Amino acid sequence: MKFVYQGKTKDVYSLDDGNYLLKFKDDVTGEDGVFDPGANTVGLQIEGAGKAGLRLTKFFFEILREKGIPTHYVSANVDAAEMIVKPAKIFGHGLEVICRYRAVGSFLRRYGKYAVEGQELDAFVEVTLKDDERQDPPISADALNMLGILSLSEYEELKNLTQQISGIVKDELQKRNIELYDIKLEFGRTENSNDIMLIDEISGGNMRAYKDGVYIEPLELEKLLVAQI
Amino acid sequence: MKFVYQGKTKDVYSLDDGNYLLKFKDDVTGEDGVFDPGANTVGLQIEGAGKAGLRLTKFFFEILREKGIPTHYVSANVDAAEMIVKPAKIFGHGLEVICRYRAVGSFLRRYGKYAVEGQELDAFVEVTLKDDERQDPPISADALNMLGILSLSEYEELKNLTQQISGIVKDELQKRNIELYDIKLEFGRTENSNDIMLIDEISGGNMRAYKDGVYIEPLELEKLLVAQI
Repeated sequence: MKFVYQGKTKDVYSLDDGNYLLKFKDDVTGEDGVFDPGANTVGLQIEGAGKAGLRLTKFFFEILREKGIPTHYVSANVDAAEMIVKPAKIFGHGLEVICRYRAVGSFLRRYGKYAVEGQELDAFVEVTLKDDERQDPPISADALNMLGILSLSEYEELKNLTQQISGIVKDELQKRNIELYDIKLEFGRTENSNDIMLIDEISGGNMRAYKDGVYIEPLELEKLLVAQI
Repeated sequence: MKFVYQGKTKDVYSLDDGNYLLKFKDDVTGEDGVFDPGANTVGLQIEGAGKAGLRLTKFFFEILREKGIPTHYVSANVDAAEMIVKPAKIFGHGLEVICRYRAVGSFLRRYGKYAVEGQELDAFVEVTLKDDERQDPPISADALNMLGILSLSEYEELKNLTQQISGIVKDELQKRNIELYDIKLEFGRTENSNDIMLIDEISGGNMRAYKDGVYIEPLELEKLLVAQI
């Protein structure tokens, strides 16, 4: 096992069999001590956050595997806060794919002239570049294609996968009377065949969820879901 | 003739026959006294800027009319700095459609991780919302469609028209050894049939043009072109 990369919320190690090990940390993104899934900085440490995030990730990735949706997931050891994943090639320097069911966050900051807070959005998908320096700018299918990051047909596949996966997460939350407002996913290509698959994680830190109109903090969300898993 | 609206660079009057009269002013957009076609504020006044802008607008709109491309143009009186146009309905609260042949300006500010300054772009089209408060955010075809601003088929038509018109402008500049880097257009729907047509103006203030690698100021560009019209 060899250390490869230190991420904001996970460390990455390579394994001898070609797979990778993700070590979930207790760091969460945010600013000034307030959690914000859209933030680029690590704002605070919460004890148990890593394991809670992994528990939820395991839960969702195993559902996705059952449904035949391609992901990088191999296995997870929640007690050790470790997940084993297949190797993946990211798109360019990394993309985030967001699926929105209600207008909040950066969507509202950009399109507030045309949308009111909390307005329903029809599984709206948008892609942003991972670029801290430029505040993760949104980017269109045409621009992704022109810059050689993603072809137009890959974009369509990415969009469809995003809507499928987000719909599955939304349904799981809905069973517990929790409403998914938006979710942020990451994708990559498989090492050999270039097929698109979901990578990274699906935890409270990737989504905004509300119960009876009240926002649920990621760790609280994980407790609410995991208690019933 | 009735005053309707005071724009940044033009005033608008309604005429008895249902058409509108645009009065071109000597104000140009920019910041701190420096011209910037992408700016939202009027930065300075240049004597003759209104007439020069109209002269170029007349030139281009008459070429477009010959080529059968739909615009709001009826006629122009350069000495009076007046242009008569057909009524148009704008999309939402107004869109700007940009066609880019080289990576400069806001494109580079957003996508500088993937593009170098001046890099060739293949008539890349993007749409931004006219929204000073939110710094004219870029918006995707899907978002325009979802927010009821433009349907997906209208977006394709807008994109095709933009590439056609920008190509015509690029060719005209090329005849004078001037290279078009990018151009900003506005479109609207005709009053009765909802057909898409080019509105506003095509002047130095709408584009970035370079000669022998040196940026040409709008008024200088208008002189260079008009001298040979």
